Amino acid sequence: MEPSTRESPSVVVLRWGHRERDKRLTAHVALTARALGASGLILADVRDDKVKDTIDMVTERWGGTFLFEMGKPWKQTVKEWKSKGGLVVHLTAYGENVETGDVLQRIKAAGKNVLVLVGCRKVPTEFFSEEVSDFNVAIGNQPHSECSSLAIFLYRFFGGKGLSKEFEGAKIRIVPQARGKKVVKA
Amino acid sequence: MEPSTRESPSVVVLRWGHRERDKRLTAHVALTARALGASGLILADVRDDKVKDTIDMVTERWGGTFLFEMGKPWKQTVKEWKSKGGLVVHLTAYGENVETGDVLQRIKAAGKNVLVLVGCRKVPTEFFSEEVSDFNVAIGNQPHSECSSLAIFLYRFFGGKGLSKEFEGAKIRIVPQARGKKVVKA
Repeated sequence: MEPSTRESPSVVVLRWGHRERDKRLTAHVALTARALGASGLILADVRDDKVKDTIDMVTERWGGTFLFEMGKPWKQTVKEWKSKGGLVVHLTAYGENVETGDVLQRIKAAGKNVLVLVGCRKVPTEFFSEEVSDFNVAIGNQPHSECSSLAIFLYRFFGGKGLSKEFEGAKIRIVPQARGKKVVKA
Repeated sequence: MEPSTRESPSVVVLRWGHRERDKRLTAHVALTARALGASGLILADVRDDKVKDTIDMVTERWGGTFLFEMGKPWKQTVKEWKSKGGLVVHLTAYGENVETGDVLQRIKAAGKNVLVLVGCRKVPTEFFSEEVSDFNVAIGNQPHSECSSLAIFLYRFFGGKGLSKEFEGAKIRIVPQARGKKVVKA
């Protein structure tokens, strides 16, 4: 995956620090990335076929072109992303608060594609440095969940459009209901 | 916990279906609830002291009055909530899409306190019924994460204010930084 050449900026998520015990949470992060408008997720440094299968099955069934890649070294991924003109945003509780500052406006004003770094646990200190991240962004400055942080970042970045996009090639889709469940074959 | 009598509506989260294997995700859901402005979380039907300790420790350290309760039967909780004039919102991928419809406006227009039902797994069918939920709300109609759904619902419900609130009695707090980490004792 690389910064695409489409007109409206796209987002790819890099999941750092995944371990065996993180299967479920990483799957939630990947599904969040997909549902909120990101183009793909890179599971950095390690492989996890079980998580990949889960995500690929969802994409196969529910549509779209979400790419799940594994095993790519994070440093190399970041370096390549930057060399191709993309921005790197590190989501961290310590960063500039998306609500009380203008960091999101500055990111959007750059008009570039974004690689979002999402850690599984305490990240290397270098994630905060200019060599790695162009921006450090906090979704509030309280400890909570990388899943929630990613969801809100993508929600704000795409202005909510991620939630109303159509997923091409979907085999099934949900028709929103006030009561009950309605699923149709697409 | 019950619908409070404060002027601006408050939100309590009811986590249904928690099991031993859900510890981590439930903790993420509870921390999300806290960080995004909810008043508390009820772990319905079961107890989990480990999760409670985790959440209480965060509240002790980072401040605020977030209440974590356990073991209350969900049916009784919903019944009491409604009898005291509160609204019940069920978060589900099958519900009215918060982005493409007016469900959130209708919820906010009611001006009542909200109990948000968040499932851990497939919920009982009755969650969709009028006896239980006043509204069924979807954060997009794609499968993703209850953590992300809750985060975005709370973000929209409170208009982002949850992310800038001060947590009273905090022992430490983060000062947002463009680079690095800054934590101060409060």
